Parts: sequence; structure tokens; C-alpha cells
Amino acid sequence: MERTDGYGDPTKVMVAVNESSLKGYPHPSISSRSAFEWTLSKLVRSNFSGFKLLFLHVQVPDEDGFDDMDSIYASPADFKSMKERNKIRGLHLLEFFVNHCHQINCEAWIRKGDPKEVICSEVKRVQPDMLVVGSRGLGPFQRVFVGTVSEFCVKHADCPVVTIRRNANECPQDPVDD
Amino acid sequence: MERTDGYGDPTKVMVAVNESSLKGYPHPSISSRSAFEWTLSKLVRSNFSGFKLLFLHVQVPDEDGFDDMDSIYASPADFKSMKERNKIRGLHLLEFFVNHCHQINCEAWIRKGDPKEVICSEVKRVQPDMLVVGSRGLGPFQRVFVGTVSEFCVKHADCPVVTIRRNANECPQDPVDD
Repeated sequence: MERTDGYGDPTKVMVAVNESSLKGYPHPSISSRSAFEWTLSKLVRSNFSGFKLLFLHVQVPDEDGFDDMDSIYASPADFKSMKERNKIRGLHLLEFFVNHCHQINCEAWIRKGDPKEVICSEVKRVQPDMLVVGSRGLGPFQRVFVGTVSEFCVKHADCPVVTIRRNANECPQDPVDD
Repeated sequence: MERTDGYGDPTKVMVAVNESSLKGYPHPSISSRSAFEWTLSKLVRSNFSGFKLLFLHVQVPDEDGFDDMDSIYASPADFKSMKERNKIRGLHLLEFFVNHCHQINCEAWIRKGDPKEVICSEVKRVQPDMLVVGSRGLGPFQRVFVGTVSEFCVKHADCPVVTIRRNANECPQDPVDD
């Protein structure tokens, strides 16, 4: 049986996390990290048994890997090692969040696909009490063509959604980076 | 000095609340009420001293009142009584929320103006840790022309925003009503 604070089942908070897009920086993105820190300091606070954190990392299939390879004419063995490498990177990313949960109950997993679609389908499947998404706050030009994962989730996820925009002082030089 | 749970200042949660738009139903809207109940049961839980709730009710100037009057050629006295009536209705609305806070520290106030603009300017002024807004979930046709207060706040409010969409089973017959 799970621990609780006596107020029913723990509040299940799904946090969608991704890697930094800055090259050579295999770490959580600025927005994932600040969404996580906000969740700990502003929601969970001292109530460790009242919350359960669910970390979902969505990997875009084959998006990564090519840049690091010598040639795009890859052999089957190259693809295999690329997949292995992606898997390991994903696990390292989740490890960061799980290790920082300390006394808070948590789960973490990886799915492949289009992040916005996968996040919403995982919300349907897992039924968290809320979804926390960081937002890079794209400019008006990018917004029109790209939209953002967070906007999609606010409209389509079947649970309350917390959108956390990046602070101006946390922005990398190119706002597309994170 | 304010009570806390030993984890710094209480988390300040601003909840934007409005009246039901159903005629003859001077009560909190379905979406305000479910946003409030969600805040209590999923965020605050047992941690009463860890949170402070801030209820903001924005009244649209002179939007109400005319329907109940005999003529739109109103005398100055009519306007005065209308204003009084609106003020009393606003206070009754806030009373509902404050009375249901029990052991949780709270504040409540009324502002006049365009809800989406006023909510964002109050966020700037009061600097809550998060803003909770209910959403009526307008259909695609209404969305194009009207947008929603919640969408505006997600994009422009200077703090994390929790959007709580109404469940299908909580919808009045006409989705514009609430």
C-alpha cells in the first residue's frame, strides 16, 4: 500500500521532461529542470507522502544520433549502436530526476513518438491528477508555424495542466535552444 | 508572521473566480468551483500552512444589471442601485470561497475591467507562485473569435498557470453558459 498524508491517494503529478537541445550538453533542458524544481518547492513542499511524481520522457524517433556519426550511410550496426546510445541517454536523463526526488515516491519511463501526442495519450492511460510542462515561450513567428507542446497539452490533455514558462534570465541566446 | 510548513513562505495560489452566467443563478460558475475544489484536494491536501489562497473576482463594468431593469433609459439612481447590487453580488461570490477555506489562510478582492487583462496585471502586482484558472473549453468556432481568458493567461501571466478544463459531465446544455 502506498503512503499518503491521510487525504486520500497521493496527488499524481506527471512531469514531461526532455533533454537540453544544446550540443554536447546531455542534461535536462532548462525548462524541464525548472518545471521539476517548481514542483518540488511550490507544490510538494514538506508533504512528501501527499504526492507521487511521474516522469515521462518522449524520445523523437531517430531525431538524434546522425550528427554524431561519420556518415549518414549507416550500416545496421551503426543504427543498433545509435539506438543503444539514445536509450542510455534517455535513462541518464530520467536518472537525474529520480535521484533528486529523495523521499518522494516516483516513477519514470521513456516513450517514443511525437511528444505532444504521446504526452496526451500517456495522460489518458495513466490518469494523473495534473500534468506539468515547461514552455520555451517561442516568439510570435515560431508560434504560428510550430505551436508548442505545452499549448497542445493545455487544449487536449485530459487533466489540469500547469504551464511553466521560462524566465527571461534563464533563456539561452537562441530561444529555440533549451 | 505567517504560519508556514517550515519550507519557506506559503505557496501563494491565485484563483480567478467568476459568477455563473446562468440566469437566476447567482453562484460561482461551474469552472470556478471545480478549480477551487481541485486546488484544495489536489494541491493543498493536508498542508494547510503551506499554502495561501488569493481569490480574485473581476467584474466586467456595467455588463450585468440591464437585463433586470424595466428600461434601458435609466436614471442616475438606477445606476447607483445597479452598482450597489453588483458590489453585493461580487462580495457574496467571494464569501462562498472564503467560507470554504476553513484552516487555510486566504485573501479575496474584486477588480473591475476586462478579466484577462486585469488577471494578468494583478499577477504582476501580487506575484503569486501560480495562477489557477478554470476553462469553459469553448468549441473551435467560438475559439477563433473569442479566445478564452485561460489561453490569454497561459501566454501572458508572469507566473505558472494551471488550466482546469471542465469535465464533459459538468457542462451545462449550452457550453457558453457556466
